[in-house]
Formats: sequence, structure tokens, C-alpha cells
Amino acid sequence: MNEPWWQAPCRVPDSASRERARRRDAQLTKPPGALGRVEALVPVLAGLQGRDRPALNRVWISIFAGDHGVAAEGISAFPQSVTAQMLSNFVRGGAAISVLARALSAALEVVDLGTVHPVGPLPGVRHLALGPGTANFVQGPAMSAETCRQALAAGRDSVHRAQAQHQAELFIGGEMGIGNTTTAAALACALLGCDPQRLAGPGTGLDAAGVARKRAVIERALARHAGPHDTLDWLQRLGGFELAALTGAYLACAQQGIVVLVDGFICSVAALCAVRLNPGCRDWLLFAHRSAEPGHLAVLDALDAQPLLDLELRLGEASGAALAVPLLRLACALHDEMATFAEAAVAGQSA
Amino acid sequence: MNEPWWQAPCRVPDSASRERARRRDAQLTKPPGALGRVEALVPVLAGLQGRDRPALNRVWISIFAGDHGVAAEGISAFPQSVTAQMLSNFVRGGAAISVLARALSAALEVVDLGTVHPVGPLPGVRHLALGPGTANFVQGPAMSAETCRQALAAGRDSVHRAQAQHQAELFIGGEMGIGNTTTAAALACALLGCDPQRLAGPGTGLDAAGVARKRAVIERALARHAGPHDTLDWLQRLGGFELAALTGAYLACAQQGIVVLVDGFICSVAALCAVRLNPGCRDWLLFAHRSAEPGHLAVLDALDAQPLLDLELRLGEASGAALAVPLLRLACALHDEMATFAEAAVAGQSA
Repeated sequence: MNEPWWQAPCRVPDSASRERARRRDAQLTKPPGALGRVEALVPVLAGLQGRDRPALNRVWISIFAGDHGVAAEGISAFPQSVTAQMLSNFVRGGAAISVLARALSAALEVVDLGTVHPVGPLPGVRHLALGPGTANFVQGPAMSAETCRQALAAGRDSVHRAQAQHQAELFIGGEMGIGNTTTAAALACALLGCDPQRLAGPGTGLDAAGVARKRAVIERALARHAGPHDTLDWLQRLGGFELAALTGAYLACAQQGIVVLVDGFICSVAALCAVRLNPGCRDWLLFAHRSAEPGHLAVLDALDAQPLLDLELRLGEASGAALAVPLLRLACALHDEMATFAEAAVAGQSA
Repeated sequence: MNEPWWQAPCRVPDSASRERARRRDAQLTKPPGALGRVEALVPVLAGLQGRDRPALNRVWISIFAGDHGVAAEGISAFPQSVTAQMLSNFVRGGAAISVLARALSAALEVVDLGTVHPVGPLPGVRHLALGPGTANFVQGPAMSAETCRQALAAGRDSVHRAQAQHQAELFIGGEMGIGNTTTAAALACALLGCDPQRLAGPGTGLDAAGVARKRAVIERALARHAGPHDTLDWLQRLGGFELAALTGAYLACAQQGIVVLVDGFICSVAALCAVRLNPGCRDWLLFAHRSAEPGHLAVLDALDAQPLLDLELRLGEASGAALAVPLLRLACALHDEMATFAEAAVAGQSA
């Protein structure tokens, strides 16, 4: 059997561009390091984009939506019908990410991977119909190996569109799926060998009894699917359509050389899957924020990721990543437009 | 003697607008609280601006520059000539805040309160000539009572221009002054009764020996000016021109009803002075970021302030506040443009 597409090599960042950006930064009219994490971003972006003056004008956002069989266990504060209803809200412009994409002049693509309550063709939504949501992973695998491969490929195809249609300089993936913090927590527990007590949280608004139920559900699932299994197998057993699509998207970005800005908890679990499947992917992932979901920190730590923002967000749909885009753009503008000490005739640091 | 201008009443936020914004927020298509600190900003802004849909399109940035006599004690990594040199960089567009102001379409005003190396009239700089920097506060008061009042009034006058010329919806003050982290740390120690060991840090880049020297200088100053003194007296004894101007600006904003976004360590010490002089001022102050300067946290705690960003910034010149402006604007856009559950026909949270 041929090597699967996601194991093809990732691009290697350009260390020469990175070093030239670092040298320019040292000459700009500010004390060295005074712009902290903002200035530290720029050489990284320069290396990834292979140019001394990185830019993030063309941003592409793909929202992947899918339903989760595990919702039958009563682990969400919202009814499952919301997944399909939000598809319409995304394209009609009323969702948080719709507002943010407009404000950022970003391209917004909405991909329906499969919902319990199918929605007729919606203008602006790409319906892929992988199934009526995943199966309940407490009882068996969430999806077949073939469906998992289709979901991974769906993410890859979005990246190819981002590149072909938009010449995207930054890719952001987002997700919508009632029940998907349970899915993400279960998958993270399996991949990190963590206890559900540590990784399962309130999601969109469970009370303490709901969180306890969610933890018990994850414990049953982990017992049902006792490993060891490889990453792809775990993704098929405990994952979701949108989690697999995000995983495929991140892998494709790393192969195509497109910078990724990872959103919150669910996206970070997808990033963990992507890095486990192909470690060279890690270089291409920037992390936007630490969310309010308690399991997020453990996943970020496993990825050695220091997110930019910490604003107690827990919405998903790429909203946290979108909120961080202006910081990245301003970092690029500072690097591009600030005067050097020589240009401004300003004295440098004393010896 | 008449009551000084800065003790006149501050405006009281409009609780009705605040409450209406909170009610609208609860109807938007997201789980309650899912946008965390971003959504929490909006009712606060609504109350301050007295309108249900707050907006921050018109941003005004005033940079106050001044020199510090205490620089003679060798407490900065940069020569004192940089204060005056940076004035030119600000107006020629090469400084960090120049780039950020352009990117944000903000108005940028540069106020020269008095430098050791006077610069001839620079187009675009407002030269107030309060003196050739302050006196060295290790030996005596940094400035006279009259000069301190002039600096406070300079800040107030900037706010009046922000209102008259720009109908500013947000005021940001910034500072430039070699030595001013020493000044700010000394003032914070005096106002908070803190040890210089806790509040003095590396500023723009002192090494360990430099930080030790800076702490010793502050200890000598605190011994020389042993209190008790009132806030105004401390400001005159240990402050700087730009610190006093920022204090006056914040007080005037609170009196005029203009929202303030406070930058880093030095601005936060000015905010502490302003709140001590007129406690009603506190309502009008939002805090942009926690800086890398170790004393900043103590000052933020004393003000019960939770800044939005934590990016290890330590540049000053309002740069941290400017970096936070897009977050505030996106918060307003989300509130204004998101659909309600009813409008989008999306089901709400389960009972």
C-alpha cells in the first residue's frame, strides 16, 4: 500500500529569511526585545513565508461542521439541532466568525461534513455528506477508516482552495459540532494518556453534574476502546468529522507551506493529531489563545505551544484565532515600517 | 483657595445603557459568556459611552515626552539624548507608535514637555518647555508645585483637543522619557508603601548590576523625601513631566466622559495617581496589557485592574495600548452585528 498523503514531507522553514528578519528587528528604534512576544513572531513568520518582510493580508478561514453520536449521552448544554442551524447563521453573516471574517476582510468557507438533521443545500455551504454525524463512540468506533480518510481529505481540499482561490498567507480552521468538546477531550485523553478528570470541562456551559456525566462517558469510551492504538486509529475511534478535517487541513498547510493559526481546545487536539501523524507539521502552527476549557492547557503543553491571548474564550468556530489576527498583522507592520536607529538618527543602547 | 480642577466630579457611567447591552449580549447566537473577556468589555463600554452599541472608531493617542534628572544617577541603558531624538522619530513616522497609529487610523499627537537637549521647533510636535527635564529627585523635589500643575494641565489640554478636534471615542496616553521607569517605580513605592526591591526592574534593558543601582537610587530618594505626603506632593517630589501630564489626561477624560485605554507600567502609575487624586476616575480606565516590568503587577493589583494582554511588552510610547485597540473594536463589532437566537432561528441552551 502506498504511503498515505499526510505522511508526505512537510515544508522546512527558511532559516535565512528568519535570520535576516531577526537582524532587521535588532536595528529598529526600540530597545532590543521591547515588543516582547509581538516582535518574536516576526522572524518566525519570515521563516515560514520565506520572505524578509512577512505579511498576512490574505487570510482564509474554513469552518468545519459535523455532528457527534456521543451527544446521545446528554453531554452538551445545547440540542444537537444547533449544529445544522448554525450553518445557515455562518453564511448569512450573523455568527461571531461571520462578523470577525468581515472585519478582517478574510475569506470564509463553510464546510458541512454531516449533521444529524440534514439541511437542504444552503447557498455558500459546501455539503460533503460523510454521514448523519459520527456514531456514538461509547458503543463502537465513531467512524469507519474510509470515512476518517474522507474527513482528512476534506480538510486538505480546503487548504488547496485557500491556496488556489485566495493565495492565502494564513489559514485558520474552525469547528462547529454540538458535543465536540467531549470528543476532543476523549481523544486528548487517549493520545496523552490523561485522566478524563483532568481534561473534561464545561464546554459550552455544562453544570457540575453535566461535567461529571461527561467524564463518566469518556471513561466508558476509553474502556471500550482500550489501546494501544496508533493516532489514526484513535482519530477514527474517538474523533469527529470536523476534528479529522482540521487535522487534514493542518497537515496540508505544512506540506504546502501555509502558516496556520490554531484556534481553541478542539483545534488544538486536531493539531496534536496532525503533529503525531507527521511531526514536521509542528513548525507551521501558531497558537492563538488559551481557552477557558480546562483541558486546553494540557494539550498546549504537549505541543509546547505558548498561545498569544488568554481571554477566557470558549466559543470555537475559529473566533479566538480571528481575534488574534490583528496582533499578527500589527507585528508585521511594525517590522516593515519602523525606522532603524541609523535612519532615524537615534542613539542606541549604551555599551 | 479654589478647589483644583482635577477634583471636579468625574462623569458617572450610564447603568441603563450598560444593562441594555448586557441583555442584548445574552440574546446573541453563542453560549452565554463564550466570548469571555471580549464580550464582558461591551457592557462596560456601553455604560461609559452612554449608548447601547458602543464604538471605538475615533481613537486619539497623545505621547508625552520629558526628561528626568535622576538619569544622572546612571539608571538607564540608553543615553538621555534619545528622548529628544525620538520626538522627531514619532512625527516622521518611524517609531513603533507611529506605525501603530497609522494602522489603526488613530490621531497621533506628540507633546514635548521639556528635554535636556532641547530640540528646535519640530513640525507636528507641541513644545511646552516646562524645563530642561525634571531635577534629580535624589537631591530634592523633581519639580516645583507650579510646574507640576502645568504638567497636569498639559494632559488635560490634550484631552480637550482630542474631544474638540477628533470627537475621540477612546483616549490613549503614551510616554517617552529616558529614566522614567525609575521615576515610576519610585512614585509607586511611595504611593503603595512598597519596597524598591519589589517594584524596580530592568526597564529598557538594565543588567543585574544596573537594576541593583536603580533600587539603591530609589531607596535614597525615598529616604530623602520621607513622608507622609499627599498624592500631589509625591507627584511633585518623585514624578516626571510626562507622568503628571498622563495623570491630568486621565482625570480630564473621566470628567469629560471619554474612555481611556491605559498602556504599561508608567501609564499605570499615572493612573494610580489619578485615582488617588479623584477616585471617580477609576471607572473610565481600561487596562491594555501587563508589561514585562515586574513592578507593573503590583500597580495593577492596587488598581484592581485586569489587563487584556500579556505579551512581555516593555516599550512604552502607548504601543501596548495600541496593540489592544483591535480587540476592543472587534468586541464592539461582534455585539453590533451578530444575530440573535430569534433572528437566526437557532435553538438556545437546554433548560
